[in-house]
Amino acid sequence: MTKDFTFRLLARDGAARRGEIATPRGPIRTPAFMPVGTAATVKAMFPETVEATGADIILGNTYHLMLRPGAERVARLGGLHRFMHWEKPILTDSGGYQVMSLSKLRKITEEGVAFQSHIDGSRHMLTPERAVEIQCLLGSDIQMVLDECTPFPATRDEAKRSLDLSMRWAARCKTAFAEMSKPGQALFGIVQGSTYPDLRKESAGALVEIGFPGYAIGGLAVGEGHETMVEMVGITTQFLPEDKPRYLMGVGTPQDLIAAIGQGVDMFDCVMPTRSGRHGQAFTWAGRCNLRNSQYAEDETPLDAESSCPAAQYSRAYLHHLVKSGEMLGAMLLSWANIHFYQELMARARTAIEVGEFDDFSKEMGRRYGDTGPKGSE
Amino acid sequence: MTKDFTFRLLARDGAARRGEIATPRGPIRTPAFMPVGTAATVKAMFPETVEATGADIILGNTYHLMLRPGAERVARLGGLHRFMHWEKPILTDSGGYQVMSLSKLRKITEEGVAFQSHIDGSRHMLTPERAVEIQCLLGSDIQMVLDECTPFPATRDEAKRSLDLSMRWAARCKTAFAEMSKPGQALFGIVQGSTYPDLRKESAGALVEIGFPGYAIGGLAVGEGHETMVEMVGITTQFLPEDKPRYLMGVGTPQDLIAAIGQGVDMFDCVMPTRSGRHGQAFTWAGRCNLRNSQYAEDETPLDAESSCPAAQYSRAYLHHLVKSGEMLGAMLLSWANIHFYQELMARARTAIEVGEFDDFSKEMGRRYGDTGPKGSE
Repeated sequence: MTKDFTFRLLARDGAARRGEIATPRGPIRTPAFMPVGTAATVKAMFPETVEATGADIILGNTYHLMLRPGAERVARLGGLHRFMHWEKPILTDSGGYQVMSLSKLRKITEEGVAFQSHIDGSRHMLTPERAVEIQCLLGSDIQMVLDECTPFPATRDEAKRSLDLSMRWAARCKTAFAEMSKPGQALFGIVQGSTYPDLRKESAGALVEIGFPGYAIGGLAVGEGHETMVEMVGITTQFLPEDKPRYLMGVGTPQDLIAAIGQGVDMFDCVMPTRSGRHGQAFTWAGRCNLRNSQYAEDETPLDAESSCPAAQYSRAYLHHLVKSGEMLGAMLLSWANIHFYQELMARARTAIEVGEFDDFSKEMGRRYGDTGPKGSE
Repeated sequence: MTKDFTFRLLARDGAARRGEIATPRGPIRTPAFMPVGTAATVKAMFPETVEATGADIILGNTYHLMLRPGAERVARLGGLHRFMHWEKPILTDSGGYQVMSLSKLRKITEEGVAFQSHIDGSRHMLTPERAVEIQCLLGSDIQMVLDECTPFPATRDEAKRSLDLSMRWAARCKTAFAEMSKPGQALFGIVQGSTYPDLRKESAGALVEIGFPGYAIGGLAVGEGHETMVEMVGITTQFLPEDKPRYLMGVGTPQDLIAAIGQGVDMFDCVMPTRSGRHGQAFTWAGRCNLRNSQYAEDETPLDAESSCPAAQYSRAYLHHLVKSGEMLGAMLLSWANIHFYQELMARARTAIEVGEFDDFSKEMGRRYGDTGPKGSE
């Protein structure tokens, strides 16, 4: 196994890329979907089950983990991998996004962001240096720079000011990472710029100037809609180096993922499969399926006959009953089936790229999933 | 595999018995603990996991299932086993106990009990005949007669009146069962009589007169305390035939189970391991463990090093974090570990009886688990 963090492209099909990231904790096949393990658990799933779905990497949330159980505590307990029984790679965000969406009384300055915990009201300060320190304490394999996720909509001036701050923070993160990280760990920059093409170009250029082993695209899937999102992704990727992985943060529906892969994105994370699963929504190869719907009350067919996931073999009637009854097993089975579907979607995308049929695959998925955004077909 | 329901004793040690029930759906090793699958799911557990803990049989609740998804619907879907992915034996209660504890506006007459659903207020009537019909629609392997679980405390007159009604209902159930059941299914009688030894004797005698392939002991663990419970069990079992299995309903703590096995009981069910698991309580070979307690926040030791359960290998620190964070995985792991513990407890009891060391085993468990009732050591 490698001691370094490296990325190589194995195949291309148009702008779509098939690649592999090597890390000391194992390879990450791209395009990759990272299940979200917010509070040191991919909700309602055993870690062994997450691995069995084909996930090469999961995501942890710095904001949640710094508040509970605390980064220093996780470090004393041997790091996040050991703590949560997950030995493969972990990517952590910087905490910035959730500070803005979840915490109370947050205030951004040049230094960083001060906020109060949504759990107990305790006061905290997240600076670029502290964000990196926390991610190093957790033992994260792929870390993210602290940035400001520019709110949507934003005027050009607001987007520019926000972007400039994020770029200064990115440079500070790189310096801190150089001091604190271990060999084989990586720090990714994050492109901002809202929906302004010239700002996206400027942000990408500034990050490439600083130099990172991977680049994320942030500030999207925040209300701009599927079309604009895909357009901004396409504009951004053309200014990113070919030989580094690209990660579109917080996206999205199956159609979002396929469209973004078509624009040259390699990595994704999203709460959608697990959150939907806890609310009775399933992703299947025949499209979305709301198990609350009474049409399934006596439907003996399996959730998804085309899926190889054990959870997808349960009858729709049984899943309907579990969801209606508020039984945990409903959330457990649907989260499992949905994560499996997302991993299988990535596996099929990788194969399609390898054989040069990504365009056909994309069209086929469009027929199955007419949706073009988070609210898509529902 | 047998086509009939049979019971044979394999060993004795004092009053404790080691036996085996044969059914068309597989054997049940006794003493046996039946995990409770109230609404067609052992809460927070996959059916495969329940089986892997060593459970030979689970329990389903007629009251819950008749209201949702409905007995006729389960029958149309191929029966409860198929519906919930559990091919081994299932025992169902008659619904009577939960009508009295959960429903609204219930009224008992000679005919049966009328009540309103706690889910939607709909009106229902449960008679001895309907209770058997529902259990046959579910496809239950071991069915229970409809009885009145005599409230505690009860005067002798109240207990006697209640008991007489239950005995008349038991006879009606047997008649209905003879008409509706399939070969290999069994109907158990239920001894009532509150805490009055002569009424316990009378009830046992009346049921034996009617004749059943197994006998349950009901109306205990309702507030009478561990000592009285064990005393009543001992009084009752001496009036039950040696060659039929005995089932103590709704009991209990590890110490309750060991004490009742010592009085000749063969079968148990209780929500305690799963309900405790959902509330952060673990049963381990070192005693009970409340994972909410902050003493475990940095305890790297596994939940139960003496257990072979995969769930018990997670650190107490991680389980503490999951429980404090309200994460489903905490309930999933602790329910699993607790059901595994109860099955392992039965397995060790069976072995102890076989080798004639049940008394030593009982004393050893007393040292580990000082508690003598549901609230025991906590």
